[in-house]
Amino acid sequence: MATAAEADAMRRAVVLAARALGATSPNPVVGCVILDASGEIAGEGYHQGAGTPHAEAHALRAAAGRARGGTAVVTLEPCDHTGRTGPCSQALIAAGISRVVYAVGDPNPDATGGARTLREAGVDVEAGLLEDAARAGNAAWLHSVKYGRPYVTWKYAATLDGRIAAADRTSRWISSPESRADVHRLRAESDAVVVGSGTQRADDPHLAVRGVEGAVQPLRVVVDTEARAVRPGARVADDTAETVVVVADDLEPDRLAELPAGEPWGLPRAADGRGIDIPALLAALYERDVRSVLLEGGPTLAGAFVAAGAVDRVIGYLAPVLLGAGPTALADAGITTIADALRLDVTETERIGPDLRITAVPTTRAHKER
Amino acid sequence: MATAAEADAMRRAVVLAARALGATSPNPVVGCVILDASGEIAGEGYHQGAGTPHAEAHALRAAAGRARGGTAVVTLEPCDHTGRTGPCSQALIAAGISRVVYAVGDPNPDATGGARTLREAGVDVEAGLLEDAARAGNAAWLHSVKYGRPYVTWKYAATLDGRIAAADRTSRWISSPESRADVHRLRAESDAVVVGSGTQRADDPHLAVRGVEGAVQPLRVVVDTEARAVRPGARVADDTAETVVVVADDLEPDRLAELPAGEPWGLPRAADGRGIDIPALLAALYERDVRSVLLEGGPTLAGAFVAAGAVDRVIGYLAPVLLGAGPTALADAGITTIADALRLDVTETERIGPDLRITAVPTTRAHKER
Repeated sequence: MATAAEADAMRRAVVLAARALGATSPNPVVGCVILDASGEIAGEGYHQGAGTPHAEAHALRAAAGRARGGTAVVTLEPCDHTGRTGPCSQALIAAGISRVVYAVGDPNPDATGGARTLREAGVDVEAGLLEDAARAGNAAWLHSVKYGRPYVTWKYAATLDGRIAAADRTSRWISSPESRADVHRLRAESDAVVVGSGTQRADDPHLAVRGVEGAVQPLRVVVDTEARAVRPGARVADDTAETVVVVADDLEPDRLAELPAGEPWGLPRAADGRGIDIPALLAALYERDVRSVLLEGGPTLAGAFVAAGAVDRVIGYLAPVLLGAGPTALADAGITTIADALRLDVTETERIGPDLRITAVPTTRAHKER
Repeated sequence: MATAAEADAMRRAVVLAARALGATSPNPVVGCVILDASGEIAGEGYHQGAGTPHAEAHALRAAAGRARGGTAVVTLEPCDHTGRTGPCSQALIAAGISRVVYAVGDPNPDATGGARTLREAGVDVEAGLLEDAARAGNAAWLHSVKYGRPYVTWKYAATLDGRIAAADRTSRWISSPESRADVHRLRAESDAVVVGSGTQRADDPHLAVRGVEGAVQPLRVVVDTEARAVRPGARVADDTAETVVVVADDLEPDRLAELPAGEPWGLPRAADGRGIDIPALLAALYERDVRSVLLEGGPTLAGAFVAAGAVDRVIGYLAPVLLGAGPTALADAGITTIADALRLDVTETERIGPDLRITAVPTTRAHKER
């Protein structure tokens, strides 16, 4: 049974872990707090990026000698394998930790086993403390381990009547400055930001993070199947962040000559011929160590993701505005009758300036576990 | 300066007044609490319908002899005129009330003057206690006095992407049973419920209140400009509540022969020829003592109301559902560019079962004071 001090420490560890969202892929975010033998906080840390020390290593270094006889409180089961850093199980044992409390078991077959190793070394191990909160904090990584593809958040900003622009295509601005700042936070927490050719043409978006201190820039991805939307001088082709243009793999090479932003990715077309095959796109992103994707639309690409069962979370910024005409947030999702509607559960609603942010997750999963 | 007991009594009076929403037009809702000379509650009451005793009369009768030397706490300035009942100012004086605290001054030129009459009789009068809450409770009536037309609430139920039905027009059900029950409460609080010919054809709606105890049925209004949507046997033509069919005033008489539900109202067409002139419709409803209208769509009629500047409040039931195709909640509102969008302020958001109810009011008024 965990103590109140351990529960407090776990809450702190979850907060610490979240600091590195968007910076650690393909690794999870992890936070760790070391309590000394008397239950006082002796050190804390979080994993800051692949190839750098794990959360436990940071926390043990901060705790130094006070770790002996103490308790390590950590959001994820300590790893048991030697990758670019040594196994945390051994580091905890070597530091004389006598108890380990973790929230979520490591689902990664290469890394699991830490709890067993610790127990075999005589360490008292308890699992499951604040597991739901820690799971939520690591949702993208846990999802990617389970399904073998990135976790996709579809973000849109629309009027109360579901429009993303007026009839004449003007859209600046539907949502408030507060909502737009909040989107930069979402981008900072994501490994990749994805738009389609319609958004590229209409908005010439920059897609990089602005105004979020310490943010790691996401990979910018433009799905430009016919290689006609990204033109020289596109804002997305600057050097603020890496950019990939995704094109159909059957285009003539001279069609690719004018694309800025380096070598495009050639991927198969969707079976129905409209755009790129979404599972292939997600597989290519996964291969590139992308574990979390922020899909910023527009309606056609979002429709293709919904049709592919590849939207794991929806974040809608609803502005208290009515238009009565203009393009809608979602199109061509392959749904023709109410029985086939994609149903979701609202997990959070929050006022963002004058707007309303709604977060929802599908009630049923259309995709399979790997 | 009002006492804490008076503030408590006013909160109670506001709650009492709200019981009769939808039942008192063309009168306001009013609640009254009588405190005796020692500040204890001696009686309470609320106005239950035009032609019946006012709130003060109910409360005075309940308080009986304890009213003498006491305080009357009332949501609206006591009336000073003799209508179907006598002036409340005189009744309060006759009962020996020594102090009157009211929230909102009576804006009705025929009824105002109660405060002056009371002061002239030596009664201590204080105005403005909890005025905002009392105003909100009487929003429809206050609006109708100010603008000379009913207060219009546009209610819609849509998916997160703004659809009211799927591509094949199926829509049962997008919103939850909880949301649909909540709509019956809205109907009960309204003097009239209005739909257009599209909704009449698609849904054959009943439009009466079910499941709300003591509800006064609203007037059911179908705007059927060409007299082609309401057919014999229409559910709206039953005898649960009164029904009016509104048609263009230039139709041939034989076109009206098949309309059920009594004599239709013939009203002028809109200047652009699409449907009925909205100001004429609101004037006809006002003439019929309707002070609050619940506009239940569909998109075309709602668009006409928005275009006419005749939507005073929007209540949207957003279901966590995505469709990507199908009719949208609002159409043809006469807005073509973002600068002309109707902007609102969100005044309330509430979870209703799995859905989200958003209440918003326009930030600018398009219509004039009379």
